[in-house]
Amino acid sequence: MYPKKFEALIRMFETLPGVGAKTAQRYAFKMLESTDEEIDSYVEAIRGIKDIAKCGRCGFLKDDEGCVFCKDKSRDQSVIMVVGYPQDAIAVEKTGSYHGQYHILNGVISATKGVYPEDIGIESLLKRINETVKEVIIATSATMDGEMTALYLDKVLKEKGVYVTRLAHGLPMGSSLDYADELTLIKAFNNRTKIEQ
Amino acid sequence: MYPKKFEALIRMFETLPGVGAKTAQRYAFKMLESTDEEIDSYVEAIRGIKDIAKCGRCGFLKDDEGCVFCKDKSRDQSVIMVVGYPQDAIAVEKTGSYHGQYHILNGVISATKGVYPEDIGIESLLKRINETVKEVIIATSATMDGEMTALYLDKVLKEKGVYVTRLAHGLPMGSSLDYADELTLIKAFNNRTKIEQ
Repeated sequence: MYPKKFEALIRMFETLPGVGAKTAQRYAFKMLESTDEEIDSYVEAIRGIKDIAKCGRCGFLKDDEGCVFCKDKSRDQSVIMVVGYPQDAIAVEKTGSYHGQYHILNGVISATKGVYPEDIGIESLLKRINETVKEVIIATSATMDGEMTALYLDKVLKEKGVYVTRLAHGLPMGSSLDYADELTLIKAFNNRTKIEQ
Repeated sequence: MYPKKFEALIRMFETLPGVGAKTAQRYAFKMLESTDEEIDSYVEAIRGIKDIAKCGRCGFLKDDEGCVFCKDKSRDQSVIMVVGYPQDAIAVEKTGSYHGQYHILNGVISATKGVYPEDIGIESLLKRINETVKEVIIATSATMDGEMTALYLDKVLKEKGVYVTRLAHGLPMGSSLDYADELTLIKAFNNRTKIEQ
Protein backbone atom coordinates (compact mmCIF):
# COMPACT_ATOMS: atom_id res chain seq x y z
CA MET A 1 0.00 0.00 0.00
CA TYR A 2 3.00 2.34 0.20
CA PRO A 3 3.67 4.45 -2.89
CA LYS A 4 5.51 2.40 -5.52
CA LYS A 5 8.76 4.33 -5.15
CA PHE A 6 8.81 3.71 -1.42
CA GLU A 7 8.02 0.02 -1.91
CA ALA A 8 11.00 -0.17 -4.31
CA LEU A 9 13.23 1.11 -1.51
CA ILE A 10 11.86 -1.47 0.95
CA ARG A 11 12.37 -4.28 -1.63
CA MET A 12 16.00 -3.22 -2.04
CA PHE A 13 16.69 -3.47 1.71
CA GLU A 14 14.88 -6.80 1.94
CA THR A 15 17.58 -8.35 -0.27
CA LEU A 16 20.17 -7.77 2.49
CA PRO A 17 21.16 -10.68 4.75
CA GLY A 18 19.06 -10.98 7.90
CA VAL A 19 16.79 -8.07 6.98
CA GLY A 20 13.05 -8.79 7.18
CA ALA A 21 10.04 -6.66 6.26
CA LYS A 22 10.02 -4.60 9.48
CA THR A 23 13.73 -3.77 9.38
CA ALA A 24 13.62 -3.00 5.65
CA GLN A 25 10.76 -0.59 6.34
CA ARG A 26 12.72 1.05 9.16
CA TYR A 27 15.75 1.46 6.89
CA ALA A 28 13.58 2.94 4.14
CA PHE A 29 12.06 5.50 6.52
CA LYS A 30 15.53 6.47 7.71
CA MET A 31 16.76 6.91 4.15
CA LEU A 32 13.72 9.06 3.42
CA GLU A 33 15.22 11.72 5.69
CA SER A 34 18.25 12.05 3.40
CA THR A 35 19.12 15.34 1.77
CA ASP A 36 19.30 15.57 -2.04
CA GLU A 37 23.08 15.58 -1.78
CA GLU A 38 23.09 12.42 0.32
CA ILE A 39 20.77 10.73 -2.17
CA ASP A 40 23.14 11.66 -5.00
CA SER A 41 26.07 10.17 -3.09
CA TYR A 42 24.11 6.95 -2.44
CA VAL A 43 23.23 6.70 -6.13
CA GLU A 44 26.95 7.05 -6.91
CA ALA A 45 27.79 4.41 -4.29
CA ILE A 46 25.35 1.90 -5.77
CA ARG A 47 26.43 2.68 -9.33
CA GLY A 48 30.04 2.19 -8.26
CA ILE A 49 29.37 -1.51 -7.65
CA LYS A 50 29.70 -2.04 -11.39
CA ASP A 51 33.32 -0.84 -11.17
CA ILE A 52 34.20 -3.21 -8.34
CA ALA A 53 35.86 -6.47 -9.38
CA LYS A 54 38.28 -9.04 -8.01
CA CYS A 55 41.96 -8.32 -8.52
CA GLY A 56 43.22 -10.92 -11.01
CA ARG A 57 46.51 -11.17 -9.09
CA CYS A 58 45.65 -11.29 -5.39
CA GLY A 59 41.86 -11.77 -5.40
CA PHE A 60 41.13 -8.66 -3.27
CA LEU A 61 38.48 -6.15 -4.31
CA LYS A 62 39.55 -3.43 -6.72
CA ASP A 63 37.75 -0.56 -8.39
CA ASP A 64 38.76 1.48 -11.44
CA GLU A 65 41.72 2.81 -9.44
CA GLY A 66 43.24 -0.68 -9.24
CA CYS A 67 44.06 -2.98 -6.34
CA VAL A 68 45.17 -1.09 -3.21
CA PHE A 69 47.50 -3.91 -2.17
CA CYS A 70 49.06 -4.85 -5.51
CA LYS A 71 49.74 -1.27 -6.63
CA ASP A 72 51.47 -0.40 -3.34
CA LYS A 73 55.17 -0.85 -4.19
CA SER A 74 56.23 -0.18 -0.56
CA ARG A 75 54.81 -3.54 0.51
CA ASP A 76 57.20 -6.44 1.10
CA GLN A 77 57.19 -8.65 -2.02
CA SER A 78 58.85 -11.61 -0.26
CA VAL A 79 55.92 -12.66 1.92
CA ILE A 80 52.34 -13.56 1.01
CA MET A 81 49.59 -13.90 3.60
CA VAL A 82 46.79 -16.17 2.41
CA VAL A 83 43.31 -15.35 3.78
CA GLY A 84 39.85 -16.68 3.05
CA TYR A 85 37.97 -13.43 2.46
CA PRO A 86 38.63 -9.72 1.78
CA GLN A 87 37.35 -8.86 5.29
CA ASP A 88 40.15 -10.99 6.74
CA ALA A 89 42.83 -8.99 4.94
CA ILE A 90 41.24 -5.79 6.31
CA ALA A 91 41.26 -7.25 9.82
CA VAL A 92 45.00 -8.01 9.52
CA GLU A 93 45.68 -4.55 8.05
CA LYS A 94 44.06 -2.95 11.09
CA THR A 95 46.69 -4.52 13.37
CA GLY A 96 49.34 -2.45 11.57
CA SER A 97 51.78 -5.38 12.07
CA TYR A 98 51.95 -6.67 8.54
CA HIS A 99 53.11 -4.93 5.37
CA GLY A 100 53.58 -7.79 2.91
CA GLN A 101 51.45 -9.17 0.09
CA TYR A 102 48.01 -10.74 0.44
CA HIS A 103 46.31 -13.53 -1.39
CA ILE A 104 42.55 -13.76 -0.96
CA LEU A 105 41.13 -17.21 -1.71
CA ASN A 106 37.54 -15.91 -1.77
CA GLY A 107 36.39 -19.09 -0.07
CA VAL A 108 37.69 -22.06 1.88
CA ILE A 109 37.67 -25.76 1.07
CA SER A 110 34.53 -27.26 2.57
CA ALA A 111 33.40 -30.85 2.47
CA THR A 112 29.94 -29.95 3.77
CA LYS A 113 29.38 -27.08 1.33
CA GLY A 114 31.00 -28.91 -1.57
CA VAL A 115 33.79 -26.36 -2.10
CA TYR A 116 36.84 -27.98 -3.70
CA PRO A 117 40.42 -26.64 -4.13
CA GLU A 118 39.70 -25.70 -7.76
CA ASP A 119 36.73 -23.53 -6.66
CA ILE A 120 38.85 -21.04 -4.70
CA GLY A 121 41.95 -18.98 -5.54
CA ILE A 122 44.57 -21.67 -5.01
CA GLU A 123 45.78 -21.95 -8.61
CA SER A 124 46.34 -18.19 -8.80
CA LEU A 125 48.27 -18.43 -5.51
CA LEU A 126 50.58 -21.17 -6.83
CA LYS A 127 51.25 -19.03 -9.92
CA ARG A 128 52.53 -16.26 -7.64
CA ILE A 129 55.17 -18.48 -6.00
CA ASN A 130 58.59 -17.64 -7.46
CA GLU A 131 62.12 -17.02 -6.13
CA THR A 132 61.10 -13.60 -4.74
CA VAL A 133 58.62 -15.22 -2.35
CA LYS A 134 60.41 -16.35 0.81
CA GLU A 135 57.41 -17.14 2.99
CA VAL A 136 53.73 -17.88 2.69
CA ILE A 137 51.69 -17.25 5.84
CA ILE A 138 48.46 -19.23 5.91
CA ALA A 139 45.87 -17.11 7.69
CA THR A 140 42.61 -18.91 7.05
CA SER A 141 40.07 -18.84 9.90
CA ALA A 142 40.48 -21.27 12.81
CA THR A 143 37.36 -23.18 11.78
CA MET A 144 37.12 -26.77 10.52
CA ASP A 145 37.03 -25.62 6.90
CA GLY A 146 39.79 -23.07 7.50
CA GLU A 147 42.04 -25.72 9.03
CA MET A 148 41.33 -28.14 6.17
CA THR A 149 42.24 -25.42 3.70
CA ALA A 150 45.45 -24.64 5.63
CA LEU A 151 46.53 -28.29 5.55
CA TYR A 152 45.84 -28.54 1.84
CA LEU A 153 47.69 -25.29 1.13
CA ASP A 154 50.65 -26.39 3.25
CA LYS A 155 50.93 -29.54 1.17
CA VAL A 156 50.77 -27.93 -2.30
CA LEU A 157 52.95 -24.97 -1.29
CA LYS A 158 55.66 -27.20 0.17
CA GLU A 159 55.74 -29.06 -3.13
CA LYS A 160 56.68 -25.70 -4.64
CA GLY A 161 59.57 -25.52 -2.16
CA VAL A 162 58.40 -22.38 -0.37
CA TYR A 163 58.61 -21.82 3.39
CA VAL A 164 55.07 -22.09 4.82
CA THR A 165 53.82 -20.82 8.18
CA ARG A 166 50.40 -20.69 9.80
CA LEU A 167 48.82 -18.14 12.16
CA ALA A 168 48.70 -20.03 15.43
CA HIS A 169 48.58 -19.10 19.12
CA GLY A 170 46.00 -16.56 20.10
CA LEU A 171 43.30 -17.48 17.62
CA PRO A 172 40.61 -19.24 19.66
CA MET A 173 39.49 -22.38 17.77
CA GLY A 174 36.08 -22.24 16.14
CA SER A 175 36.12 -18.46 15.80
CA SER A 176 36.17 -16.50 12.56
CA LEU A 177 39.30 -14.48 11.76
CA ASP A 178 37.15 -11.54 10.77
CA TYR A 179 35.89 -11.19 14.36
CA ALA A 180 39.20 -11.60 16.22
CA ASP A 181 40.32 -8.58 18.26
CA GLU A 182 43.49 -6.88 17.09
CA LEU A 183 45.63 -8.02 20.04
CA THR A 184 44.71 -11.64 19.41
CA LEU A 185 45.56 -11.19 15.74
CA ILE A 186 48.94 -9.62 16.56
CA LYS A 187 49.70 -12.55 18.89
CA ALA A 188 48.71 -15.05 16.24
CA PHE A 189 50.86 -13.20 13.71
CA ASN A 190 53.94 -13.04 15.95
CA ASN A 191 53.67 -16.68 17.01
CA ARG A 192 53.11 -18.17 13.59
CA THR A 193 54.49 -21.74 13.32
CA LYS A 194 55.34 -24.35 10.69
CA ILE A 195 52.62 -26.90 10.12
CA GLU A 196 53.53 -30.28 11.67
CA GLN A 197 51.76 -33.20 10.03
CA MET B 1 41.78 -0.10 2.98
CA TYR B 2 38.91 -1.25 0.76
CA PRO B 3 38.72 0.35 -2.69
CA LYS B 4 37.04 3.79 -2.47
CA LYS B 5 33.90 2.68 -4.27
CA PHE B 6 33.41 -0.18 -1.86
CA GLU B 7 34.02 2.09 1.12
CA ALA B 8 31.32 4.42 -0.25
CA LEU B 9 28.88 1.52 -0.15
CA ILE B 10 29.81 0.67 3.45
CA ARG B 11 29.42 4.34 4.48
CA MET B 12 25.93 4.37 2.98
CA PHE B 13 24.82 1.35 5.01
CA GLU B 14 26.39 2.76 8.18
CA THR B 15 23.85 5.61 8.10
CA LEU B 16 21.02 3.12 8.71
CA PRO B 17 19.61 2.76 12.24
CA GLY B 18 21.36 0.09 14.34
CA VAL B 19 23.88 -0.76 11.62
CA GLY B 20 27.53 -0.79 12.73
CA ALA B 21 30.74 -1.29 10.77
CA LYS B 22 30.54 -5.11 10.65
CA THR B 23 26.92 -5.22 9.50
CA ALA B 24 27.46 -2.45 6.95
CA GLN B 25 30.38 -4.47 5.56
CA ARG B 26 28.22 -7.59 5.38
CA TYR B 27 25.49 -5.68 3.55
CA ALA B 28 28.03 -4.22 1.11
CA PHE B 29 29.43 -7.68 0.30
CA LYS B 30 25.90 -8.98 -0.29
CA MET B 31 25.10 -6.08 -2.62
CA LEU B 32 28.33 -6.75 -4.51
CA GLU B 33 26.75 -9.97 -5.77
CA SER B 34 24.03 -8.01 -7.58
CA THR B 35 23.56 -8.25 -11.33
CA ASP B 36 23.79 -5.10 -13.44
CA GLU B 37 20.00 -5.08 -13.72
CA GLU B 38 19.59 -5.25 -9.96
CA ILE B 39 22.04 -2.40 -9.53
CA ASP B 40 20.05 -0.31 -12.01
CA SER B 41 16.86 -1.01 -10.09
CA TYR B 42 18.54 -0.01 -6.80
CA VAL B 43 19.80 3.21 -8.35
CA GLU B 44 16.22 3.92 -9.46
CA ALA B 45 14.93 3.09 -5.96
CA ILE B 46 17.35 5.51 -4.31
CA ARG B 47 16.71 8.21 -6.90
CA GLY B 48 12.98 7.75 -6.33
CA ILE B 49 13.36 9.10 -2.77
CA LYS B 50 13.37 12.60 -4.26
CA ASP B 51 9.84 12.01 -5.56
CA ILE B 52 8.51 10.84 -2.20
CA ALA B 53 6.75 13.50 -0.12
CA LYS B 54 4.02 13.80 2.49
CA CYS B 55 0.48 14.08 1.20
CA GLY B 56 -0.70 17.61 2.04
CA ARG B 57 -4.18 16.28 2.85
CA CYS B 58 -3.69 13.11 4.93
CA GLY B 59 0.02 13.13 5.77
CA PHE B 60 0.73 9.70 4.25
CA LEU B 61 3.64 9.14 1.88
CA LYS B 62 3.02 9.88 -1.78
CA ASP B 63 5.17 9.74 -4.87
CA ASP B 64 4.61 11.35 -8.28
CA GLU B 65 1.57 9.13 -8.76
CA GLY B 66 -0.17 10.85 -5.84
CA CYS B 67 -1.48 9.58 -2.49
CA VAL B 68 -2.78 6.00 -2.66
CA PHE B 69 -5.39 6.67 0.02
CA CYS B 70 -6.64 10.11 -1.04
CA LYS B 71 -6.96 9.27 -4.74
CA ASP B 72 -8.97 6.10 -4.03
CA LYS B 73 -12.58 7.25 -4.50
CA SER B 74 -13.94 3.87 -3.35
CA ARG B 75 -12.89 4.61 0.21
CA ASP B 76 -15.53 5.73 2.74
CA GLN B 77 -15.35 9.52 3.06
CA SER B 78 -17.37 9.62 6.29
CA VAL B 79 -14.78 8.13 8.60
CA ILE B 80 -11.17 9.15 9.30
CA MET B 81 -8.75 6.96 11.23
CA VAL B 82 -5.98 8.99 12.89
CA VAL B 83 -2.63 7.21 13.28
CA GLY B 84 0.78 8.31 14.45
CA TYR B 85 2.93 7.07 11.58
CA PRO B 86 2.60 5.78 7.99
CA GLN B 87 3.57 2.26 9.18
CA ASP B 88 0.49 2.26 11.43
CA ALA B 89 -1.86 2.92 8.49
CA ILE B 90 -0.21 0.04 6.62
CA ALA B 91 -0.69 -2.25 9.65
CA VAL B 92 -4.41 -1.39 9.72
CA GLU B 93 -4.70 -1.86 5.94
CA LYS B 94 -3.29 -5.38 6.30
CA THR B 95 -6.25 -6.39 8.50
CA GLY B 96 -8.56 -5.74 5.52
CA SER B 97 -11.23 -4.55 8.01
CA TYR B 98 -11.13 -0.85 7.28
CA HIS B 99 -11.81 1.04 4.08
CA GLY B 100 -12.20 4.64 5.21
CA GLN B 101 -9.90 7.65 5.23
CA TYR B 102 -6.64 7.97 7.13
CA HIS B 103 -4.94 10.87 8.79
CA ILE B 104 -1.28 10.41 9.63
CA LEU B 105 -0.03 12.74 12.35
CA ASN B 106 3.61 11.93 11.62
CA GLY B 107 4.38 12.03 15.32
CA VAL B 108 2.66 11.96 18.70
CA ILE B 109 2.50 14.54 21.46
CA SER B 110 5.37 13.85 23.85
CA ALA B 111 6.24 15.73 27.01
CA THR B 112 9.60 13.95 27.30
CA LYS B 113 10.61 14.54 23.67
CA GLY B 114 9.17 18.04 23.58
CA VAL B 115 6.67 17.35 20.81
CA TYR B 116 3.70 19.71 21.04
CA PRO B 117 0.30 19.60 19.29
CA GLU B 118 1.44 22.19 16.73
CA ASP B 119 4.41 19.98 15.78
CA ILE B 120 2.27 17.15 14.39
CA GLY B 121 -0.55 16.97 11.82
CA ILE B 122 -3.41 18.04 14.11
CA GLU B 123 -4.26 21.33 12.41
CA SER B 124 -4.53 19.61 9.04
CA LEU B 125 -6.82 17.01 10.68
CA LEU B 126 -9.14 19.67 12.09
CA LYS B 127 -9.34 21.27 8.63
CA ARG B 128 -10.66 17.98 7.26
CA ILE B 129 -13.62 17.86 9.70
CA ASN B 130 -16.82 18.87 7.88
CA GLU B 131 -20.41 17.61 7.62
CA THR B 132 -19.32 14.62 5.49
CA VAL B 133 -17.19 13.24 8.35
CA LYS B 134 -19.39 11.23 10.72
CA GLU B 135 -16.67 9.59 12.82
CA VAL B 136 -13.03 10.01 13.71
CA ILE B 137 -11.30 6.86 15.01
CA ILE B 138 -8.24 7.65 17.08
CA ALA B 139 -5.70 4.89 16.46
CA THR B 140 -2.53 6.19 18.05
CA SER B 141 -0.31 3.56 19.73
CA ALA B 142 -1.20 2.35 23.22
CA THR B 143 1.87 4.03 24.70
CA MET B 144 1.98 6.94 27.16
CA ASP B 145 2.53 9.44 24.37
CA GLY B 146 -0.10 7.76 22.17
CA GLU B 147 -2.67 7.94 24.96
CA MET B 148 -1.83 11.59 25.66
CA THR B 149 -2.27 12.36 21.99
CA ALA B 150 -5.61 10.49 21.93
CA LEU B 151 -6.94 12.48 24.88
CA TYR B 152 -5.86 15.76 23.31
CA LEU B 153 -7.41 14.81 19.96
CA ASP B 154 -10.64 13.72 21.64
CA LYS B 155 -10.93 17.15 23.26
CA VAL B 156 -10.29 19.27 20.17
CA LEU B 157 -12.35 17.01 17.89
CA LYS B 158 -15.37 17.04 20.23
CA GLU B 159 -15.21 20.84 20.16
CA LYS B 160 -15.73 20.47 16.41
CA GLY B 161 -18.86 18.41 17.17
CA VAL B 162 -17.67 15.20 15.51
CA TYR B 163 -18.23 11.69 16.90
CA VAL B 164 -14.88 10.41 18.24
CA THR B 165 -13.91 6.80 18.97
CA ARG B 166 -10.69 5.16 20.09
CA LEU B 167 -9.19 1.75 19.29
CA ALA B 168 -9.51 -0.07 22.56
CA HIS B 169 -9.73 -3.72 23.67
CA GLY B 170 -7.11 -6.03 22.29
CA LEU B 171 -4.24 -3.57 22.13
CA PRO B 172 -1.88 -4.52 24.98
CA MET B 173 -0.80 -1.34 26.83
CA GLY B 174 2.77 -0.20 26.28
CA SER B 175 3.06 -1.88 22.88
CA SER B 176 3.47 -0.11 19.56
CA LEU B 177 0.59 -0.31 17.03
CA ASP B 178 3.07 -1.07 14.32
CA TYR B 179 3.96 -4.39 15.96
CA ALA B 180 0.47 -5.61 16.86
CA ASP B 181 -0.65 -8.85 15.20
CA GLU B 182 -3.56 -8.55 12.77
CA LEU B 183 -6.08 -10.38 14.97
CA THR B 184 -5.36 -8.03 17.88
CA LEU B 185 -5.80 -5.09 15.54
CA ILE B 186 -9.13 -6.40 14.20
CA LYS B 187 -10.34 -6.88 17.81
CA ALA B 188 -9.28 -3.37 18.72
CA PHE B 189 -11.04 -2.04 15.61
CA ASN B 190 -14.32 -3.90 16.26
CA ASN B 191 -14.43 -2.98 19.96
CA ARG B 192 -13.64 0.70 19.57
CA THR B 193 -15.21 2.81 22.34
CA LYS B 194 -16.00 6.44 23.13
CA ILE B 195 -13.38 8.07 25.32
CA GLU B 196 -14.69 8.56 28.88
CA GLN B 197 -13.02 11.40 30.73
